[in-house]
This record gives sequence, structure tokens and C-alpha cells, in this order.
Amino acid sequence: MFTGLSAFPLTPMHEQGVRENEFSRLVERLAKAQVNSIGVLGSTGSYAYLNREERARVTQLAIESAGDVPVIIGIGAMRTRDVLALAEDAQKAGASGVLLAPVSYQTLTDDEVFSHYETVCRSLSVPLCVYDNPGTTHFEFSDELHGRIAQLPQVRSIKIPPVSMNLNAARERVDRLRALIPEDVTLGISGDVVAATGLTAGCDSWYSVLGGLFPETALAITRSAQAGDFKTAQRLSDQLEPFWALYREYGGSLRVIATAAEILGKVSMPCLPLPLNTFQGSRRARVEQVIEELELR
Amino acid sequence: MFTGLSAFPLTPMHEQGVRENEFSRLVERLAKAQVNSIGVLGSTGSYAYLNREERARVTQLAIESAGDVPVIIGIGAMRTRDVLALAEDAQKAGASGVLLAPVSYQTLTDDEVFSHYETVCRSLSVPLCVYDNPGTTHFEFSDELHGRIAQLPQVRSIKIPPVSMNLNAARERVDRLRALIPEDVTLGISGDVVAATGLTAGCDSWYSVLGGLFPETALAITRSAQAGDFKTAQRLSDQLEPFWALYREYGGSLRVIATAAEILGKVSMPCLPLPLNTFQGSRRARVEQVIEELELR
Repeated sequence: MFTGLSAFPLTPMHEQGVRENEFSRLVERLAKAQVNSIGVLGSTGSYAYLNREERARVTQLAIESAGDVPVIIGIGAMRTRDVLALAEDAQKAGASGVLLAPVSYQTLTDDEVFSHYETVCRSLSVPLCVYDNPGTTHFEFSDELHGRIAQLPQVRSIKIPPVSMNLNAARERVDRLRALIPEDVTLGISGDVVAATGLTAGCDSWYSVLGGLFPETALAITRSAQAGDFKTAQRLSDQLEPFWALYREYGGSLRVIATAAEILGKVSMPCLPLPLNTFQGSRRARVEQVIEELELR
Repeated sequence: MFTGLSAFPLTPMHEQGVRENEFSRLVERLAKAQVNSIGVLGSTGSYAYLNREERARVTQLAIESAGDVPVIIGIGAMRTRDVLALAEDAQKAGASGVLLAPVSYQTLTDDEVFSHYETVCRSLSVPLCVYDNPGTTHFEFSDELHGRIAQLPQVRSIKIPPVSMNLNAARERVDRLRALIPEDVTLGISGDVVAATGLTAGCDSWYSVLGGLFPETALAITRSAQAGDFKTAQRLSDQLEPFWALYREYGGSLRVIATAAEILGKVSMPCLPLPLNTFQGSRRARVEQVIEELELR
């Protein structure tokens, strides 16, 4: 489950609730494309903006729409108490795995984060992926802490932040971490822009924003890399440079992918929870232009 | 209401809920000391870790226990929708004002933050204090944005992050902001360590963690500054240097003040929500030693 392409769909919503039919259709599309897993309620799925009931409902819809593709549910929350409740909901609904980021308001210590994972793992009967995303959680994992947490028996993967664009540096990063974790714990790359580099450097999976909306495009890169054809993987990624430029210039992937989904009519507008907004005006026009140019659909 | 000492009490809790009696006693103590306002459910009050029902209950308890002292309620949340609900709850309960931080998971843009405040302000019949705390929200206000938001008629104060220890630099900071905001919007200093400096530099109020547990100690500093005796204010602050050293060395004020409250028996242990912990072992011993040395009670 924690290898290959893990596709992270948006959770389209309005101010009163989730756009359920649209969400189900996004998941069905991923299942039809036969991605390796579907990462529901990740950062792209706006988990941090939904309440427990909404998250339970989204989980249920995802599992109903995912066919035989494993569903991984994001269970992050500020409080250990709430994560335990979300873990219970996810497991009851039939999730194949869970994804946990150390979401913070007050800066967390290494020991607090370790205890948090330890407590949550004790309540789990499904495997867990450690979600390392300092850009949103504002917690920086040390390699040593990753090593400690990865010894917990439920931990089976680590979703790591973007590696260097430099392949040697990326390899060193992956090797350094690999040396500290058990053999059966996979490493997955985040950051679509460096996904091909990450897979070439030895990552087992790609936790993908792009793949949540354009599964075929992301699968082509992933399958090339899995077949050992890293040159093709990199070439396919390089072809998407105009899209990666949007991520870089417009402050990350979420608003870009959400705007793209609106433009393509996959989701209604608005699809993000206020205060977040998709792009309007010239930025929206540029996203539209890039989608057409790259024939993304 | 947004001048003088605004004291921010802890919200003591266990994993199942709020320690209601202990919280009420903390508030009663602040009312008895006649602080200028009580800032409930600020960062020190762990607002980000409580659900809507718990926050409504804490608000109610605070207002019941505060006597004639105005109560300001923290209404920050990730989502505009949730802030609107919290604002409604606070107003219905009889809050005198609200405090709003731009809590974020995805990094927010200036325009998103402005619209967030604008939308919330439209729903308010009580004044609002803008809560600028980049250490927890990870949003950096520009002076220009402060100026724009402060024009909203409901905005009556800005709770600013710690100023420089250098008085001239602090004065420049306060003057620069003051030039951009309406005359009836007050500036309040956060960061207990530089509170005397901030008040001397022209801040109208001190949004105080120390004051939430040791109101008399914080009032002595505030009243000196309000009387124009900045030398005494600074001397009283300097006497607390061993306590400020704990903030500096142990990663901020929350765990220090929560540990102090536990040591003094004002709250039961644990009083913070997991994954947060108060100090044990040598750190706890040092907090105890400093409290004794400074005769804090």
C-alpha cells in the first residue's frame, strides 16, 4: 500500500459542508486509473479545516468509491485526544491505513511528538504513515526522531518533504534516513516538483498532489521509475515544468490544483474553505493556459 | 478595556475535559486583583486545543467568575466558518470583546487574512483585538496589512509580538505602527519579558501570561508604567529575570506558567492537553526554585 503512486484528492467544499458527489467522483477516477493508494484528507484534502463528523463522512465516501484501491486516511489534529477519535473513526470505516502529521499550535518537542505517535500507534490495527510536512505543521523532524518513531510496529512508511533537485544530494538524504529505519518502512516523496528525483534517489512511493487530479500523468512518471527507467520518469516530469512553475510562483500546490480542478469543472467554485481562496484574474488565466498547453485533463 | 493589564489565564484541563472549578478560581483571582481585562482562551488558555462546546463552556465560566472585569474571548480557528460560530457563542455569552489570530495550516496570503477579519468583523457587535502571534499562527503581518485591518470599525486593539529589548528600537516599532492605525486603536505588548520595555515605548496595554497567574506582580509593573514611572516598571521587570530566563531557555511561556501553576497547586497535574506536557525532573525543580526565590504566589 505504501509503494508506488499514492494520489491525494481535494475535498471540494463550500462554507456549509463537503461537496459529496464531486468528492466521490474524484475518488472514482483515481480508482479507475488504478493508483496504488488514495490519500484522503491529506493537506490537499484540507483535513485541518473539517470537523470530526465531516471527516468521518469523507472517509466513508472515499472507501465506498475507491473499489479495490487501498484508502489511507489523514488523522492529524492538534490534540492527541482528537487524533485517537479520528483513528477510531477511520478504522471503523474500513481504512487500509492512516497518515499522521504532528500538527501544532504550540511548538512541540521531540519527546512530545514521539509520545504522540506512540500513543496513537497503540490504538491502531492498521498501518501508519508518518507525515513529515514542516511547511504546514511547523515541526521539524530530526533524522534521529524519525528513526525512533519508525521502530513503532504500526509505522510502515514516512512521507518526507521535498528532497533536493540535485540527485546526489537527494540520494544522500534518502540513504541517511534509510539507515535509521527498519527495512519494511517505506519512504515516500512529497513535493510533486521533485517526485521523479525522489523516486530516482530511492523513494518507494510518491505521495502526490498532481496524482489526485491527474492520475494518468502521475502514473506515467511513477511506472517509469518503478521499471527502473529513471530517465523517462525525469523527462516526463520535466515536461510538466510550466505546471511546477505555478507551484513555485503561486505559493505551493494546493491553490494551483484546486484552481485547476475548478477550471476543468471537476469541482464547483469555490472548492476551498475560507479564508483560503482559489486564484482569480490573471493567475487563474495562467493556470488555464498551462493546463491547455500541457493537455492536462 | 484594551488598556492596562490584560491577564491571560490558563485553561487547566485533562484528556476528557476542562478542569472547570480550577479555571473559575483562576478567573476569580484575576477579578479580585482588578486587572483591566481578562483574556480567556488565548494561547495561554489553549484555545486551539478545545472544541466549540468546550470553548463555549469556558467562556460562560469566565464571565460568571469575572465580576465587573471585562472578559475578552479568543475566537481563532483555521476556518472562517468556525470563527463566525465562535464569535456568535462569545457574544451570546456576554463577552466584552474578542481576540482573533489568523490561525493557519496552509500559509495565508495578506488578502485572505484581510477578508477573514473583514468577514468576522461584520458579524460582531463587540470590539475586536487583532492577535499577531507569528510564533503560533505562522502568519507574518506586514505593517501595511495591520494598517488596513485596523481601519475596520470593530478593531480596537492590536496585540503585537515582542518588541526589541532595545528601547529606541522598540519605540521606532511602536511609532511606525501607530502612524498607520486610527487613534482609537490601542497597541498591546505580548511577551512578558519585554512588557516593561513595550509599555515604556508607548504600548497602551500588556497582554500578559504572567498576569494570568500572578496578577499582583504584573499589575505592579503595569501601574508603574501607567503612572509614567518607567524606571520602576523596568526595575520590577528586571527583578523577575530568573523567571524570564525560564521562558527563554525552556521554549516559551506556556509550559513554564503551566508548570508553575501545578507546583503552586492552582491547577491539578496534568493541566495541558496532550501532546503538550508540563516539565518534570530537573526543569520542574528549577521552576520551583525560581518561584520560591522570587516569592511568586
